[in-house]
Amino acid sequence: MKNSLISYPLHHDEQLRARARKVIPNGMYGHLSTMLLPTGRVPQFFARGEGAYVWDTDGNRYLDYMCAYGPNLFGYGQPEVNAAFVEQMQAGDVLTGPGPAMVDLAENMTGMIGHADWAMFCKDGTDASSIALMIARAHTGRRKIIRARRAYHGSASWCTPIRHGVIAEDTAHQIFCDYNDTASLQAAIDEAGDDLAAIFVTPFQHDTFAPQAMADPAYMRLARDACDRLDAVLIADEIRCGFRLSRDSAMTLNGVAPDLSTWGKVLANGHPLSAVLGSDRLRAAAASIYVTGSYWYGAAAMAAANVTMRLIRETPYLEKLSRLGEALRTGLDEVATRHGYAFQQTGPVEMPLFLFEGDPDMRLGYRWTTEMLARGIYVHPWHNMFLNDAMTEDDIAQTIAAANESFAALRQCEAELTAPPELAILRKMVDH
Amino acid sequence: MKNSLISYPLHHDEQLRARARKVIPNGMYGHLSTMLLPTGRVPQFFARGEGAYVWDTDGNRYLDYMCAYGPNLFGYGQPEVNAAFVEQMQAGDVLTGPGPAMVDLAENMTGMIGHADWAMFCKDGTDASSIALMIARAHTGRRKIIRARRAYHGSASWCTPIRHGVIAEDTAHQIFCDYNDTASLQAAIDEAGDDLAAIFVTPFQHDTFAPQAMADPAYMRLARDACDRLDAVLIADEIRCGFRLSRDSAMTLNGVAPDLSTWGKVLANGHPLSAVLGSDRLRAAAASIYVTGSYWYGAAAMAAANVTMRLIRETPYLEKLSRLGEALRTGLDEVATRHGYAFQQTGPVEMPLFLFEGDPDMRLGYRWTTEMLARGIYVHPWHNMFLNDAMTEDDIAQTIAAANESFAALRQCEAELTAPPELAILRKMVDH
Repeated sequence: MKNSLISYPLHHDEQLRARARKVIPNGMYGHLSTMLLPTGRVPQFFARGEGAYVWDTDGNRYLDYMCAYGPNLFGYGQPEVNAAFVEQMQAGDVLTGPGPAMVDLAENMTGMIGHADWAMFCKDGTDASSIALMIARAHTGRRKIIRARRAYHGSASWCTPIRHGVIAEDTAHQIFCDYNDTASLQAAIDEAGDDLAAIFVTPFQHDTFAPQAMADPAYMRLARDACDRLDAVLIADEIRCGFRLSRDSAMTLNGVAPDLSTWGKVLANGHPLSAVLGSDRLRAAAASIYVTGSYWYGAAAMAAANVTMRLIRETPYLEKLSRLGEALRTGLDEVATRHGYAFQQTGPVEMPLFLFEGDPDMRLGYRWTTEMLARGIYVHPWHNMFLNDAMTEDDIAQTIAAANESFAALRQCEAELTAPPELAILRKMVDH
Repeated sequence: MKNSLISYPLHHDEQLRARARKVIPNGMYGHLSTMLLPTGRVPQFFARGEGAYVWDTDGNRYLDYMCAYGPNLFGYGQPEVNAAFVEQMQAGDVLTGPGPAMVDLAENMTGMIGHADWAMFCKDGTDASSIALMIARAHTGRRKIIRARRAYHGSASWCTPIRHGVIAEDTAHQIFCDYNDTASLQAAIDEAGDDLAAIFVTPFQHDTFAPQAMADPAYMRLARDACDRLDAVLIADEIRCGFRLSRDSAMTLNGVAPDLSTWGKVLANGHPLSAVLGSDRLRAAAASIYVTGSYWYGAAAMAAANVTMRLIRETPYLEKLSRLGEALRTGLDEVATRHGYAFQQTGPVEMPLFLFEGDPDMRLGYRWTTEMLARGIYVHPWHNMFLNDAMTEDDIAQTIAAANESFAALRQCEAELTAPPELAILRKMVDH
């Protein structure tokens, strides 16, 4: 079976993994761990990134559809962004106060995001989610939050999807509903009663291991109306989808404005920066909480973000992502059909997720992913992917050609496949 | 009264503040906000940093004893650190997996820190504190933590010192004791009983608004013994003092090894990076929790940290900080005495805190700080400060000379001083 894969040895990667196992728990942790990905064929470590490509430590190049799980919007190492970063770094980055770049960035973002009157900056998406939660509770003086089952908002103890080390109080006063299910949202609103502080929504549904779905406007309308009626806070989590679907809040696509929105990933095209944006109604509450971080106000990432905001406003990147995404979706549909596979592509074309229908233990998905990796295309078997502005039509064509070969190779070995053992690990972790 | 201050207009700073008030809650937030510092004389924004100095946006230069509240250990913009950062950034920073620099750094740090067998990296000190808490709870399956009243461990909802937006559950199962008070620590241990997960300690006491104190070995011994007896976890928070008192854990000065230690601030000499280090006993628990962040594995900050670790190991920076700190303490004592002030310098000389005895509303401290700032020396009236390796003996001599003038100026206007109104804001925030 292994012979059907194009050979690419991962000697250096193996050596690094062996060293890492000694000095890092599990050898790696968090969302970039390959523990739940096809064993032996997915590099854990990368040596280089440029434009749309990454190189592993053995010199293999991949067209990278993960984009660092989001941050790469204009290409790895985008020259204008990095020039601004280095120039500001040389002048001064993390100092005893912020630089003018912070004010510029707050003006830039509030000018671009319709619902926003003010901005707070932090480092990671989890920071932004946690700040939004605190602002909502400070504003309302209430405790309950409603969020969709399986929606990811970060990995603090109140929201991490795996609850080792988490106590019952960490997750108290959270009511779960099903995304796009207005009846379950209404039930959650009723349950929260006069203790409702906030409803968290993602502008579309991008859970792992499941098809993605665009938002039902009725679901978003219900959330907005409930927050209006109860003086609660609608929080849009745009950390993953921000600026890939719109130059404004992605909630504009749903016809509903949030009170707070949380941003991260692409803000500085890969340099560490996240943000909470809010309306005047929440300004006093935002000013009342105490949150901070040693590096939150570093000017270099903010200078990089100001260039990123200009690229977002002034270049046709958004239309390009949409055009390339459409071409990819159509092309993959064609080759999948040609090989007789029910290949499910869901979510916005700029952020696709691939699943095989009738593949409950994901053996098809894991093998197809491995075949794509062996052909230099880094795709993911159960997490949404991302397009970026450095990708070209030729990249898309090569992806479709590799997919054609990978479907053929899959057909060849399909009968021999077994359930991926990696997913048993996940089940054990979640079931704890 | 204002005439006694050397004139330095802050026009650009005022303009930036006016713009910031429109688009940032309070115009600034967190530990770098100048809201609680002397109004009108402390710049909020900085344009530049180099070595031991910062420049505000009006071109005024300050010898910076805040060191960005810690991160500046080898001087702002240290050339070797920044060269490594830029080189790695150009190769690849935040990618779809970590780089080899992460393994190097874990090996470097576990090699340097005696108690540590493994390392996890994150972005801010709060991340590190929260991860340590989760690991302790995962390891023990218990809930209670003991920590010293007023000790700062970050600003997540479980630990932020100002509780707006925080609900009762966020701070559940925390028992507070008084630093260095073994009776109160023993009472806390008794109260926790068989539900004790962890004891948090800082290697010395560095609370704000109060004199600092070195650790009483008996206090640390009691914490260690209780954790041993109960299989609980001793967590040393070295975020603020790490590598300024020792090339190993600062707990070595107290004769006690922690199970987990948390690090931040100086790790990459200002580039965003923090860490949790632990012993083998905690490895399985560390491997079981799910924590992550979009930028935690960025290779550029890790490459910068590897250079910082080399500078820590191979240069006499530590002996220099100690020598300069002693000279500063002695010199300030002399000039304070000359002017008849009971000037209280506490904590290690590398991380001094200045308070005036008999100054309950801090009117002397605020005015003296302002006089120092007007003379180009950035000191803080109620937070500990930091020395860095870029400081020189001449810098210390100039500080002492400025202090001499500032004590004289203080004496001149002392009778006219009133309580700083800024501290009333704080009281209002904390009392909420």
